[in-house]
Amino acid sequence: MIKTKQKVNAAIIIIGNEILTGRTQDLNVAVISKWLNDLGVQLEEVRIIPDIEKVIVTNVNNIKKKFNYVFTTGGIGPTHDDITAKSIAKAFNLKYGYHKKAYSILEKYYSKNDFTEGRKKMAMMPTKASLIFNPSSGAPGFIVDNVYCLPGVPSILKSMLDGLEDKIKGGKKILNKTITLKTVESEIAEPLRKIQNKYKGTEIGSYPFFKQGKVGVSIVVRSTDKNLIFDCCKDIKDFIKEKKIETI
Amino acid sequence: MIKTKQKVNAAIIIIGNEILTGRTQDLNVAVISKWLNDLGVQLEEVRIIPDIEKVIVTNVNNIKKKFNYVFTTGGIGPTHDDITAKSIAKAFNLKYGYHKKAYSILEKYYSKNDFTEGRKKMAMMPTKASLIFNPSSGAPGFIVDNVYCLPGVPSILKSMLDGLEDKIKGGKKILNKTITLKTVESEIAEPLRKIQNKYKGTEIGSYPFFKQGKVGVSIVVRSTDKNLIFDCCKDIKDFIKEKKIETI
Repeated sequence: MIKTKQKVNAAIIIIGNEILTGRTQDLNVAVISKWLNDLGVQLEEVRIIPDIEKVIVTNVNNIKKKFNYVFTTGGIGPTHDDITAKSIAKAFNLKYGYHKKAYSILEKYYSKNDFTEGRKKMAMMPTKASLIFNPSSGAPGFIVDNVYCLPGVPSILKSMLDGLEDKIKGGKKILNKTITLKTVESEIAEPLRKIQNKYKGTEIGSYPFFKQGKVGVSIVVRSTDKNLIFDCCKDIKDFIKEKKIETI
Repeated sequence: MIKTKQKVNAAIIIIGNEILTGRTQDLNVAVISKWLNDLGVQLEEVRIIPDIEKVIVTNVNNIKKKFNYVFTTGGIGPTHDDITAKSIAKAFNLKYGYHKKAYSILEKYYSKNDFTEGRKKMAMMPTKASLIFNPSSGAPGFIVDNVYCLPGVPSILKSMLDGLEDKIKGGKKILNKTITLKTVESEIAEPLRKIQNKYKGTEIGSYPFFKQGKVGVSIVVRSTDKNLIFDCCKDIKDFIKEKKIETI
């Protein structure tokens, strides 16, 4: 990760057996990470853990001390396996019960006959939590201290991020530039190592790919300093020209 | 997670800034998880961490004590940002250098002129590690104690798993049955909670979905005991019949 004087970092805790069993493919990490980067926050760790209260409590308490922001995804629905809200209350030693404002939001969202016990459960959370507005499906997310609890369904999660932007105070934004080459990593490893050593303020990533029979490498240069990225990319372009490597 | 007398568990450590920045979508968790489940091993934690030696060492040392098997993905290629092998050597306090057998494999794989410094680096690892055969692209993975180091490129990783099967000693296999309903979670939360309380030896997951305008819920019943799954599913079918909920 790039070190800057104004570095702000974050972690995600994905709560859900369905991701661990391979039944469901996580799509939220990429969405949250890109959204955070635009706000000047670097995602530095992700944990995927099961729906077990003790495990959630331990991980939340461990992770919240290490990062400026923590996002949890999943486990805030109406069924018996949705135990995130209760676990967060336990982690922070807070009262768990009906959250007045959340209850009122859900009461308005559903007609009287449709406001079932299951739906009422979605208003149960740490009673003093701040709420995260949900424009898609009513049931709000919530915030306790630096922990932001979001649902697991990608479309709903995505719709809730916009309303959070004014709550996140980021640092310098990480910029990036990608150069994609028709080559294999071994051919560029040595010059790339030298360039990385020259430009300490950048982070150069090298990512091989094999797509539809085509082999290539994407070089990604990341930094908070756009001039440094420009100079670094110039050096990369010089050596690929010298080595007669084609770009894609 | 389901408790059985013969429970064998595992964790994955994904090493790669490209996953954390959202540039690359991880596809390996689902593949490894399903492969492990067939062998009777439950995946219980995943961590995604950056390409930073200190972070890798800390996480490997922390995780290897907690689980029967640990799999790392990524960071074993030829470029400067591939630091998994060196970090694993450090975590286990082992000598890092050219692994004789790995060197010999790569020497045979490439012609003399093509065996560049970059490619030779892929033979550098803990010198006493066991190797994992790579039928796709030559460069082997390696094993130290209960830590299995695999590449990040999904097609290569997948091709290497077959050769590992005789090294994994699993417990009882977790079986599962899915019932998919045209309903929303709140409608089934209460009866499902009761059934979960009745069948303690099963784990019932409830997963809502919103696809192409269609709303539904998949109920997944998991257990090592197929008779228990059958009885539990019978109870679920009884209540959905009673509530006149359609299956999909």
